[in-house]
Amino acid sequence: MSNPVVCCDSIEVSMDVGPDITDITRQLASVAQRANVEDGSLHASVIGSTGSLTTIEYEPGVVEDLKRAVTKLAPPGIDYEHEKAWHDGNGHSHVQAALLGPSIVIPVRKGGLALGTWQQVVIINHDNRSRKRRVEVTVVGRSSTDGLVKSPI
Amino acid sequence: MSNPVVCCDSIEVSMDVGPDITDITRQLASVAQRANVEDGSLHASVIGSTGSLTTIEYEPGVVEDLKRAVTKLAPPGIDYEHEKAWHDGNGHSHVQAALLGPSIVIPVRKGGLALGTWQQVVIINHDNRSRKRRVEVTVVGRSSTDGLVKSPI
Amino acid sequence: MSNPVVCCDSIEVSMDVGPDITDITRQLASVAQRANVEDGSLHASVIGSTGSLTTIEYEPGVVEDLKRAVTKLAPPGIDYEHEKAWHDGNGHSHVQAALLGPSIVIPVRKGGLALGTWQQVVIINHDNRSRKRRVEVTVVGRSSTDGLVKSPI
Repeated sequence: MSNPVVCCDSIEVSMDVGPDITDITRQLASVAQRANVEDGSLHASVIGSTGSLTTIEYEPGVVEDLKRAVTKLAPPGIDYEHEKAWHDGNGHSHVQAALLGPSIVIPVRKGGLALGTWQQVVIINHDNRSRKRRVEVTVVGRSSTDGLVKSPI
Repeated sequence: MSNPVVCCDSIEVSMDVGPDITDITRQLASVAQRANVEDGSLHASVIGSTGSLTTIEYEPGVVEDLKRAVTKLAPPGIDYEHEKAWHDGNGHSHVQAALLGPSIVIPVRKGGLALGTWQQVVIINHDNRSRKRRVEVTVVGRSSTDGLVKSPI
Repeated sequence: MSNPVVCCDSIEVSMDVGPDITDITRQLASVAQRANVEDGSLHASVIGSTGSLTTIEYEPGVVEDLKRAVTKLAPPGIDYEHEKAWHDGNGHSHVQAALLGPSIVIPVRKGGLALGTWQQVVIINHDNRSRKRRVEVTVVGRSSTDGLVKSPI
């Protein structure tokens, strides 16, 4: 049996004014692959207090429905104490992101992400301006090379 | 000190039409035990985009209260874009699951799950049909056997 | 390259009647530092079913806005089945905590927590009484000492 490995990486995502929802499954799968982890766990956390991570069936209908639900949770245009002090118009963004949460854990199995067929990992930008968002990714697991250099297939 | 170990496992749960809430604490504790991990962290993620994981005091009152709250977050019977395209009647299920999130991290201490006395890990099926739900579980931690074969007690 | 290490620790936080929100970033950073982990992942889970963890910009405006949003999610004073059986007046606390979730994953980079400049880790006490809350913390990562005893700087 191979010893556990820990690999750290990050991805960046250019995002529109919130609520904006982007599928990052492929980028996270690439991180797992580069980490050369066969089985284990991928931890992703969005940097900044107006972003969040979750999973959805990434199709236009669910994307729109989730945007509406997130907006209903903390609508722009009502009174926020944050705005009274900072006047940056994103009081709702902070509340939405805090309720959804910044981190997620995805299983790694056979070198790939274990997700449902219609389940994708998404990042949500809740901020009231476009943002380049960074997601820090840590993969913990058993190496697929067992300490040996794998010859090319 | 022993080297860290990573163990991967999964459990399956038969669930009713959502919102249905099932206590999976015992099954997760069994996974931790089989992993032979003394101290570390258990990561659980539900496969599929209409399930979620959280912790509650698992008694009939809280179970009913949480079902109501989840239904209020995204009620069935209002307009969902997902349903306009797919006509499967589960637009609300997708939104509910995305807001709660698919993953959870539970500490492992002294070979068991570290939870409050009245705190249980639950899986929620949000889908509008009964489902057999799979939860992938990864345990990372220090082995309790320190690399030695433990003799039977 | 150093072998992965797993370190387990816990912190305690004295909290007021909920919703009360406390910044625990510094305490978690101390745990990461004591763990002597250079790069990896910190997992924090609150013990008990009426507490939760998330990240926010910890300033009085956002703290107040999040308290209001959490209260709106599950207000005290409406009917809860939990209270009909237990009469402890905290039906709303259970629902709020379940919706936000008990656990969070924070990246560890260069020996510190990787967070945005205006992003802090907070614990929320949702209970209707003051509580001393315990958070179990597990750090998984690569040691900064590579197995050697580091001489004092």
